[in-house]
Amino acid sequence: MTNLIKDFNDYRTRMNEVILSKNNLVMKRLWNLDTNTYEDGALNKKTKEMLGLVASMVLRCDDCIRYHLDKCFKQKTTTEEMYEIFAVANIVGGTIVIPHTRRAAEYWEELNK
Amino acid sequence: MTNLIKDFNDYRTRMNEVILSKNNLVMKRLWNLDTNTYEDGALNKKTKEMLGLVASMVLRCDDCIRYHLDKCFKQKTTTEEMYEIFAVANIVGGTIVIPHTRRAAEYWEELNK
Amino acid sequence: MTNLIKDFNDYRTRMNEVILSKNNLVMKRLWNLDTNTYEDGALNKKTKEMLGLVASMVLRCDDCIRYHLDKCFKQKTTTEEMYEIFAVANIVGGTIVIPHTRRAAEYWEELNK
Amino acid sequence: MTNLIKDFNDYRTRMNEVILSKNNLVMKRLWNLDTNTYEDGALNKKTKEMLGLVASMVLRCDDCIRYHLDKCFKQKTTTEEMYEIFAVANIVGGTIVIPHTRRAAEYWEELNK
Amino acid sequence: MTNLIKDFNDYRTRMNEVILSKNNLVMKRLWNLDTNTYEDGALNKKTKEMLGLVASMVLRCDDCIRYHLDKCFKQKTTTEEMYEIFAVANIVGGTIVIPHTRRAAEYWEELNK
Amino acid sequence: MTNLIKDFNDYRTRMNEVILSKNNLVMKRLWNLDTNTYEDGALNKKTKEMLGLVASMVLRCDDCIRYHLDKCFKQKTTTEEMYEIFAVANIVGGTIVIPHTRRAAEYWEELNK
Repeated sequence: MTNLIKDFNDYRTRMNEVILSKNNLVMKRLWNLDTNTYEDGALNKKTKEMLGLVASMVLRCDDCIRYHLDKCFKQKTTTEEMYEIFAVANIVGGTIVIPHTRRAAEYWEELNK
Repeated sequence: MTNLIKDFNDYRTRMNEVILSKNNLVMKRLWNLDTNTYEDGALNKKTKEMLGLVASMVLRCDDCIRYHLDKCFKQKTTTEEMYEIFAVANIVGGTIVIPHTRRAAEYWEELNK
Repeated sequence: MTNLIKDFNDYRTRMNEVILSKNNLVMKRLWNLDTNTYEDGALNKKTKEMLGLVASMVLRCDDCIRYHLDKCFKQKTTTEEMYEIFAVANIVGGTIVIPHTRRAAEYWEELNK
Repeated sequence: MTNLIKDFNDYRTRMNEVILSKNNLVMKRLWNLDTNTYEDGALNKKTKEMLGLVASMVLRCDDCIRYHLDKCFKQKTTTEEMYEIFAVANIVGGTIVIPHTRRAAEYWEELNK
Repeated sequence: MTNLIKDFNDYRTRMNEVILSKNNLVMKRLWNLDTNTYEDGALNKKTKEMLGLVASMVLRCDDCIRYHLDKCFKQKTTTEEMYEIFAVANIVGGTIVIPHTRRAAEYWEELNK
Repeated sequence: MTNLIKDFNDYRTRMNEVILSKNNLVMKRLWNLDTNTYEDGALNKKTKEMLGLVASMVLRCDDCIRYHLDKCFKQKTTTEEMYEIFAVANIVGGTIVIPHTRRAAEYWEELNK
């Protein structure tokens, strides 16, 4: 696992522990709900992760993008499919999405190494 | 066709004509590109329209939502699938997306009449 | 109750029923969680509603603003306090918030009639 | 003056009066500052209004767009120039800006009647 | 003072000096107005800083969040109160706010050391 | 060329190559269109770059800001003009734009060295 991926996951895990240790019930339940949202249903997990990714891209949240890239990778999304998601995000969200697409492309390369 | 759908489509057509009549090349090419983005590719048209919809929902653009609802409807998206897209949009984008979800639900009912 | 308030509440109730009738579990649980978020805790209900309002204002969601204006009104927020919330929203969010502040001011007048 | 323009200006004037009547000093000073921002300086008024317009477009605030369209019109912006501003806004902000461009185009036609 | 806090404050001070040295009157007056906005009024300073924080969180500006976390800390906001603000921000703004909440939680720990 | 500018340009070039190597036609055409948007027309290149900059500032995309700062610099924008663009961005977009203005000011200093 390269440093880019490891660093992201380590920080994420460490801060999630800090947040959960404060026992704020709303935060805890929101996080559970977040997990449930992407389970297989009428739409399968892979489609839902692609939806989560494109939403994260147009809202331009790099960490959310990384999280969903990882999930999409685990659901066997191909690079060709991934770039079509990038295309939708860039058309809907405009060139303001390009810098986030660069960082997404970098992370996607790492995942595929 | 109910008034909600007809009014939206009529206004859209009328103003698109005004805009295109000005012959701004960038606007024209962007609109062509927009159409191409949702064609069948590695991902099929239906999946891409769902991506366009969820992106429009988290960016909270009612007219864009209506446009993609119509396209999703034509791609045979079921109501159960649709509400799973709504769920992703509301979880990623938060309760700020709820009023747009109400208007989306209303339009979806109209389309299914 | 004036029409502005009645129309908003009626549409809201009607569409909430449509949405809930589809039995999407994520949507239902998110809405319950939303209600819990504003209950008395370390911060009281009034403060939390003011937080919800300012968040809705900078995100520029008119319906969310109306919803929280109503809740703030029920928590006995004064007009002077309300305009200090408006001021924070306009300073943080910029002049882009002004049109939403106009509609908020109109709704606030209605509530205080 | 057509209804679209008159209605917008009337509502704006009426609600501005309500807001200013509450004597919130921050709001008053912000509005004065807003006026000063677009005065002739190193950049002239016309350029500044174009900047205000494109900013309003990518932030997708219809009323702000109308306000700056009116100011640009008074600064003798041509339709060809206007559509180049629209093009920048649509490229930077993406297709999500299109519905706002339709309403902007409609208002621009009214102003030019 | 830990590095995270010191680095943020040092950069902030240094760049504020650069900006103010250019003598742009609008920028100077906006910054003064910003300071006035959070003074005691009908709402007290602590409440206003909490409003500024939640607004910064849903708009997802890490540096703005850090600035208001520091102000909230000086106004004796407790950790339990803080996490209720985090909860409102995450419910209104959605899971897209989570990465910013992680960085806010980290900074809050530093302030409380 | 200082490191800040060199690092930005190097990363940009490197990731653009990765993205273009995937041959996604929509992405390629969008990038071409992006270049065309800022060519001389009814409005000159300098004005268009200023429009691109203010749009990037209110949308708060640091990399987009850097890109347009560089273009504005090449179009001989003066520091006084630049700070008037900053002022419009901060008034329209609010204090949430300030941290991005700090980073813009830093990059502008580098360009002018």
